[in-house]
Amino acid sequence: MIKIAIDAMGGDYAPKEQVLGAMEAIDKIDDIQLILYGKEEEINKYLKPNSRIKVVNANHVIPMDEKNPIGAIRRHKDASMVMALDSVSNGENDAIVSSGATQALIAGAHIVIRRMKGFKRTAIAPVIPTVDNRSVILLDTGANLQIRPEHMLQQAYFATIYANKVLEIKNPRVGLINIGTEKGKGRELDQEVYELFLKTDLFEFSGNIEPKTILEPDCDILISDGFTANIVMKTIEGTAKGMGKILKNSLMSSFSGKLAGLLAKKNLIKFKKQMSAEEIGGAVIYGLQKPVIKAQGASKAYGFYNGIRQAANIVRNQVFETVEEYIKSESSGENE
Amino acid sequence: MIKIAIDAMGGDYAPKEQVLGAMEAIDKIDDIQLILYGKEEEINKYLKPNSRIKVVNANHVIPMDEKNPIGAIRRHKDASMVMALDSVSNGENDAIVSSGATQALIAGAHIVIRRMKGFKRTAIAPVIPTVDNRSVILLDTGANLQIRPEHMLQQAYFATIYANKVLEIKNPRVGLINIGTEKGKGRELDQEVYELFLKTDLFEFSGNIEPKTILEPDCDILISDGFTANIVMKTIEGTAKGMGKILKNSLMSSFSGKLAGLLAKKNLIKFKKQMSAEEIGGAVIYGLQKPVIKAQGASKAYGFYNGIRQAANIVRNQVFETVEEYIKSESSGENE
Repeated sequence: MIKIAIDAMGGDYAPKEQVLGAMEAIDKIDDIQLILYGKEEEINKYLKPNSRIKVVNANHVIPMDEKNPIGAIRRHKDASMVMALDSVSNGENDAIVSSGATQALIAGAHIVIRRMKGFKRTAIAPVIPTVDNRSVILLDTGANLQIRPEHMLQQAYFATIYANKVLEIKNPRVGLINIGTEKGKGRELDQEVYELFLKTDLFEFSGNIEPKTILEPDCDILISDGFTANIVMKTIEGTAKGMGKILKNSLMSSFSGKLAGLLAKKNLIKFKKQMSAEEIGGAVIYGLQKPVIKAQGASKAYGFYNGIRQAANIVRNQVFETVEEYIKSESSGENE
Repeated sequence: MIKIAIDAMGGDYAPKEQVLGAMEAIDKIDDIQLILYGKEEEINKYLKPNSRIKVVNANHVIPMDEKNPIGAIRRHKDASMVMALDSVSNGENDAIVSSGATQALIAGAHIVIRRMKGFKRTAIAPVIPTVDNRSVILLDTGANLQIRPEHMLQQAYFATIYANKVLEIKNPRVGLINIGTEKGKGRELDQEVYELFLKTDLFEFSGNIEPKTILEPDCDILISDGFTANIVMKTIEGTAKGMGKILKNSLMSSFSGKLAGLLAKKNLIKFKKQMSAEEIGGAVIYGLQKPVIKAQGASKAYGFYNGIRQAANIVRNQVFETVEEYIKSESSGENE
């Protein structure tokens, strides 16, 4: 049985949607047990008893707008998020899913679960939607500002294992985000990464990818440093949001447009959802000792269920173990 | 009279649309003379004789997909683009408008017209559309990879003069593109620029701007280094293009959607145009000795006319002279 710790109190609609999502997961996935951390009384309002769901009471909740995430993690040992993280750190559970405050979860993951030995820079890797409905991993959006080509190689390798074992992409290809497609483009870092990725046997390298094709890139994994990828993610979000508004204004300015807007309403909502920050927001943290899944803050039951499914897939397919093994062989190689 | 050199042969629809655009400009703007460089015979097919339009024959045209822009500029002294640049460099004309090959024009501008003395890094600054129909300047998209805070101060100052005198924005405000809004966010460069901009009296500083609001930013000028701003521009372009396709697919998947699509067709085309690469593509090069306006490669007559209008506004309002004066006072200050 795969044991997954659930931060039942984190999220805009917690604990209701988290509990409903957990029940959906139990229903659909046979080999999991869920341990829900949070206020027992509130959780029990929504929970139908099930032998594979356990509730552990937690008195505190870290608020979604927590201003001092590190302090909150250190101070509130009785917070649902911290207790869930602890349970993974001490081996009681195999993974954690939380839609709680992002910065607190990231801080908590580093403080409580810690980095995989030899993995130099953890990365946050959301999956972005594409025109042809593929899943493309974007990393590192976690604002790692000091990074070296070797760190990016580790992150890209992690992404290929994840893409292969969880997203079921046969031969995941890695593309480097750059200002031009030709070799030699970009900053010194980009040029060094290009050379390193060209030589590696760990994955197939698609070369430089210009963000002109960001929603239909000729690769499965897009990588850049933590500053650039974060800027790319936020520019996608801002453009999508802005375009939605421009389109709405444009439709509302004519009668046929208004009529069209009414007819297309369902499609427009679906479209908005597909491109929304919340959809882009769900992400796995790469390079920790155990899987930490950040579900969207605005998760409803189905979204949260998807986070649990993701966690189960990661554990079942031994994503973290595979990367750990490679990192070990890499560092033993260094000592030869 | 303001004298503007026109590269009549550069552009996807040259020389027809360039010539039509020139005639429109002569019609609408009283204080300009236009000198058209290109194949006289082809130009004359579309040109109605006018005392304020002169044609100068040029035998060569630099192709839109020129692979060796610097070589092309040096080799082809008889190219329409090079002859037009030369005429501005030697003082015959006041500014140049071209929708020819971007890299060739940039190379040519630097080789033939040269940098303004004391202006350390030229910048390319397209205007991006916003949700509320303002014009926001994005710079530097010209891929200046080695840049210092002082260079960005010069560029930002240039942008404020341009925004004030040409875009008629009263007190243009400058925002720094960053991964978070708080002070202290970003790389060392970003932190240094933040401090420098906070102290300057040259313009109002809006602080850090996250690209989540890229199409509705709380400022008039968005600045970052040449790598980041280029990535932002291309991500806007890629997201807009991708979203257009996703929206189309989504509409086409249902009957009401198809009907809505038909009704909204005009609005959707307008929308696509507003967000297209070509609309974003038009740009002024900051920091040269004379104004060089890069009109969109796909310019039609109206777009090209707009480029000419822009050039006339820059010359009439002495944008370059104002910046030059400041740069001079700045460097004399350094010597005190």
